[in-house]
Amino acid sequence: MSEARDGKFRDRLRERLLATAEGIVTEEGLAGLQARRIAQDADCSIGTIYNIFGDIDGLILETNARTLDELGRLLGAAARRSEGRDLEAWLTTLALAYLDYATANQRRWRAVFEHHLPETKEFPQEHRENRRRMLALIEAQLEASINEPDARSVAANALFSSVHGIVLLSLDGKLLPFDPAKSERQIRFLISRAVLGIEHTAQG
Amino acid sequence: MSEARDGKFRDRLRERLLATAEGIVTEEGLAGLQARRIAQDADCSIGTIYNIFGDIDGLILETNARTLDELGRLLGAAARRSEGRDLEAWLTTLALAYLDYATANQRRWRAVFEHHLPETKEFPQEHRENRRRMLALIEAQLEASINEPDARSVAANALFSSVHGIVLLSLDGKLLPFDPAKSERQIRFLISRAVLGIEHTAQG
Repeated sequence: MSEARDGKFRDRLRERLLATAEGIVTEEGLAGLQARRIAQDADCSIGTIYNIFGDIDGLILETNARTLDELGRLLGAAARRSEGRDLEAWLTTLALAYLDYATANQRRWRAVFEHHLPETKEFPQEHRENRRRMLALIEAQLEASINEPDARSVAANALFSSVHGIVLLSLDGKLLPFDPAKSERQIRFLISRAVLGIEHTAQG
Repeated sequence: MSEARDGKFRDRLRERLLATAEGIVTEEGLAGLQARRIAQDADCSIGTIYNIFGDIDGLILETNARTLDELGRLLGAAARRSEGRDLEAWLTTLALAYLDYATANQRRWRAVFEHHLPETKEFPQEHRENRRRMLALIEAQLEASINEPDARSVAANALFSSVHGIVLLSLDGKLLPFDPAKSERQIRFLISRAVLGIEHTAQG
């Protein structure tokens, strides 16, 4: 086999493994992503998974990266649609898009945050960059009200994490049974008050 | 054996199983909480676990309830120490106590939120009440600035979930490597701005 054909074969195999993993995580969540199971469903050997992705964590990271890409495109579209609107309206639109995505793709979305590498392994830099793109969107929007770049990064992180926490605990239904209208009220409350506080501080 | 002695024996067994489960979750996290393993470490049969706790989920819920009790006592103490301080100082003290507890007891704290019952089972009411006690603390503190009880409940939920999200994503280290000082800055930012917004709204 020529090197080019060999490369193509490997790409197709890689694609098939990722599509299989995506199907499993959609149906069963992170717990379903086990090497033996994926190999069987994709009709290849476990060795092939290790050969292409290093280990099962490598395959899971790639599967989660696809979910994050999809989520990133969705939030990017919401951001473009909200261009020119005020900070509160812009942040609320993005946060509600995040809530809707997480609600509709709950198992895949949870897998992104539930997957933990063994404590001895560091989180790979390229996947960290991938996640930071969502934060960069928010940081850009805060430029008008928070001058100092470091404070802006703290603010973007805090706002993203807050919305994430509201969505996560709402979906868990451990405090109250899940009710999307209640999550939306919490998101609207948090963003409206935080933006008031940010603008009040900026003027003061 | 008399009924009284029988009850005592059962209580001791129950206590031993919970202490064993607590030790395992402290060392290994939720993944270690398996019936066979707990039975072996506690020197009893798997049947005993089912007999006392219904099923493994029942034992995990009780183990997590102990973590929540400990966390609740800690937050209760922080709340008493902060009595009479303004809303921002009070909320910040509690949120930082939450961050410290989660950081120091990471595996046990995560187990509380990572444990999910099978989708067919509803979350038991008594455990829900257990969790709502933390919210009640915050709600009481918001009485002066948010009149309407329903809006107050939304606010308390949103603030608790926001701090939870900040602590969780900071500890995960997937956006940035974990740095307690950065988490603290995010918490201080979020609470100061939200409180400004809440007070601004209350006056308006």
